[in-house]
Amino acid sequence: MLETLKKEVFEANLELVKHGLVMFTWGNVSAIDRTRGLAVIKPSGVDYDVMTPDDMVVLDLEGNIVEGRLKPSSDTPTHLVLYKSFPNIGGVAHTHSTYATAWAQTGMDLPNIGTTHSDYFRNNIPCTRDMTATEINGNYEQETGRVIAERFLGTNPGINPEYTPGVLVSSHGPFTWGKDAGEAVRNAAVLERVAKMAFIACIVNPDLTMNWELTKKHFSRKHGPDAYYGQ
Amino acid sequence: MLETLKKEVFEANLELVKHGLVMFTWGNVSAIDRTRGLAVIKPSGVDYDVMTPDDMVVLDLEGNIVEGRLKPSSDTPTHLVLYKSFPNIGGVAHTHSTYATAWAQTGMDLPNIGTTHSDYFRNNIPCTRDMTATEINGNYEQETGRVIAERFLGTNPGINPEYTPGVLVSSHGPFTWGKDAGEAVRNAAVLERVAKMAFIACIVNPDLTMNWELTKKHFSRKHGPDAYYGQ
Amino acid sequence: MLETLKKEVFEANLELVKHGLVMFTWGNVSAIDRTRGLAVIKPSGVDYDVMTPDDMVVLDLEGNIVEGRLKPSSDTPTHLVLYKSFPNIGGVAHTHSTYATAWAQTGMDLPNIGTTHSDYFRNNIPCTRDMTATEINGNYEQETGRVIAERFLGTNPGINPEYTPGVLVSSHGPFTWGKDAGEAVRNAAVLERVAKMAFIACIVNPDLTMNWELTKKHFSRKHGPDAYYGQ
Amino acid sequence: MLETLKKEVFEANLELVKHGLVMFTWGNVSAIDRTRGLAVIKPSGVDYDVMTPDDMVVLDLEGNIVEGRLKPSSDTPTHLVLYKSFPNIGGVAHTHSTYATAWAQTGMDLPNIGTTHSDYFRNNIPCTRDMTATEINGNYEQETGRVIAERFLGTNPGINPEYTPGVLVSSHGPFTWGKDAGEAVRNAAVLERVAKMAFIACIVNPDLTMNWELTKKHFSRKHGPDAYYGQ
Repeated sequence: MLETLKKEVFEANLELVKHGLVMFTWGNVSAIDRTRGLAVIKPSGVDYDVMTPDDMVVLDLEGNIVEGRLKPSSDTPTHLVLYKSFPNIGGVAHTHSTYATAWAQTGMDLPNIGTTHSDYFRNNIPCTRDMTATEINGNYEQETGRVIAERFLGTNPGINPEYTPGVLVSSHGPFTWGKDAGEAVRNAAVLERVAKMAFIACIVNPDLTMNWELTKKHFSRKHGPDAYYGQ
Repeated sequence: MLETLKKEVFEANLELVKHGLVMFTWGNVSAIDRTRGLAVIKPSGVDYDVMTPDDMVVLDLEGNIVEGRLKPSSDTPTHLVLYKSFPNIGGVAHTHSTYATAWAQTGMDLPNIGTTHSDYFRNNIPCTRDMTATEINGNYEQETGRVIAERFLGTNPGINPEYTPGVLVSSHGPFTWGKDAGEAVRNAAVLERVAKMAFIACIVNPDLTMNWELTKKHFSRKHGPDAYYGQ
Repeated sequence: MLETLKKEVFEANLELVKHGLVMFTWGNVSAIDRTRGLAVIKPSGVDYDVMTPDDMVVLDLEGNIVEGRLKPSSDTPTHLVLYKSFPNIGGVAHTHSTYATAWAQTGMDLPNIGTTHSDYFRNNIPCTRDMTATEINGNYEQETGRVIAERFLGTNPGINPEYTPGVLVSSHGPFTWGKDAGEAVRNAAVLERVAKMAFIACIVNPDLTMNWELTKKHFSRKHGPDAYYGQ
Repeated sequence: MLETLKKEVFEANLELVKHGLVMFTWGNVSAIDRTRGLAVIKPSGVDYDVMTPDDMVVLDLEGNIVEGRLKPSSDTPTHLVLYKSFPNIGGVAHTHSTYATAWAQTGMDLPNIGTTHSDYFRNNIPCTRDMTATEINGNYEQETGRVIAERFLGTNPGINPEYTPGVLVSSHGPFTWGKDAGEAVRNAAVLERVAKMAFIACIVNPDLTMNWELTKKHFSRKHGPDAYYGQ
């Protein structure tokens, strides 16, 4: 079942490798079929170079395995919370890519300081609050999804997850998403790149400021009704 | 028409990839035929690995398409302003290469602190002023070209664009140029490298100073009437 | 003799190259057969691209050569001290990988500031004390092993070498270990990556703090009786 | 003539590329036949991928071309001064490798802060003084060689060029040497790596100090009469 989606998820996982975003098995991508209410995700601990589309695991949104011989990625509960919290997203990616993970370790938002960032992410990439001992020692991976959702939806004003399709989980690393698995991975690659640029720029000039009018322009010329951009 | 120039522009765009200066479609190169008053530029949003010379778009300097099935790069108006403002240049390149873009995000000039820089760029690589809301929300890409031209020609003393063939657009990224498309790309590669070197050097020694006599020597032994250099 | 182990050690040495952890012959991996009390190690100064499994050297734990035409790695005495001091380890790796070596040069512990670190190393990666002139001018390579062992076992509270399978030798570089040669190399690759992440994070936010409950969780979900993790 | 030496110099120039030490034609390697008093050097401005051993240029130590269709590298006079000043060296390499060049731009010595450095270079890698306007506008490339020689031989105590086979030319970049062209290139690769490590370490811990007894040990176990080392 869902052969096309399994192939898409399989290929999106390989794109993580191609973009240099993972070592060993540190990364996973999933996608959702909203009509059937089923998600497809990478199996747990399988090497990228022996993985096949048939190894992908199909689950319902409560985490019950519907099809698949292998255990789904341990991060599956986080992915499922994101699908339930953000009803318009179609794919989710998680990596431990170097610069994005290092920013997550700082506990700080990744500031939007350039048009490369604004072309893909409307706001700063938010960093979640620290998780509590209760959350960590409870259903940890699910709670990870909840602190992400809280950071977008539980504040006033909230952050639109479709306009800022990524987050830094404090002390941990990035999650990104998009309309499908491929876009989630592309956003992971962009996040890694803008995290590196922000590292360089913030060291050279700790007092730099952003031109917000420019941010708005760059985001809106690629996204939404007035989009016209292609390099 | 302009088959040779289209091939040159096509190959120069692929050189961007070879030098590691672009990810996805973040970059574009153009060239101009000064006799006919026509420019050739990369099409918009086409992947580098499926692009062919025939996909290149031919335009007049007002931006009217003269030949080509595809939309020209959205950055085309910036390129055209540069060709009109700097009458002796033959090619223009734009990238979001990591270190040069990060420097652009700092809003600071990239200082000339070494002979590698001086071999290609006579002065600091200037950074443009912030664009105004009116410029951003007007004909944005054309106004981007205008703030670049202003930085070179509108100050006293001005900066000679042939001696310093590159600029950082504040909060955005670098544009470089040269006698043809290939030289514009080589200058983009050099700019990325000297931006990385300046990042390292300025951190290790924030008080470093340049030997200006050395700058002048290195530039003049490669450029102008007394050039004799080749490594 | 020990043909299987020699092949494992040979392949683990090649993995060092594949992970970008060595240049020239700067690195060596060994493994131990606990039943026979024999270690297998890379020969000294042999290029990785001409090395074969048969070039591996077999020694007893006093350093006497039992089999092998070539001289064992000069670092052999350090490896042997580690096998004698840490009775449950099966493989040891030594590299001069860039970020881990730079951290060793700082004389500081590599702080555990993220879950990537905690997934593999329970604590900070400790840095040894400076060696004395007597140690350096005596049986230097053996004394290097002793200051490592002292850092884990000679302090109160000690550090469990099975939970924190790596060390930084002050002014020198990293040693890592594991249940076999392959795991020692994987830990060397992870150490290099988390050293790079810590470099970036500590510059961006010098005041960052770790969520220790999260550390404990990440380590325990991959290691020990309650392990369940696979990405 | 000197066919073997020309092949060695040719291959050493290609090693520069293989080690990632050059872009475009930014680098050159030479070697000397001390018996005949002739040097062999890379031609000027020739791309590495079309160069052949026959393109190498043979010169006497006054810079007169003895054999070769092409112009020798513009840096030739610097190489020749080094051969005349340091009578025991057999090869010289010059690059603009990123970290070593950035250190040269700081005008500071590259401190010996680790055993990787000590394994190849006994002391700090010295940085030359700034050149004067007279030197720059005179026989510039020859004067570059002279400020290098002055830094080693003209101070009290001097620096032994055989024990510290490399230098940073202020605001410019590194020169390295060795018993032959291959060793000069290997020293260039090591210099680039230790420059990167020193950059990282000095940022993480600006107050770090070196264990000089360790420096002496690491240098002497690889060099001189008591050498025994191989990893």
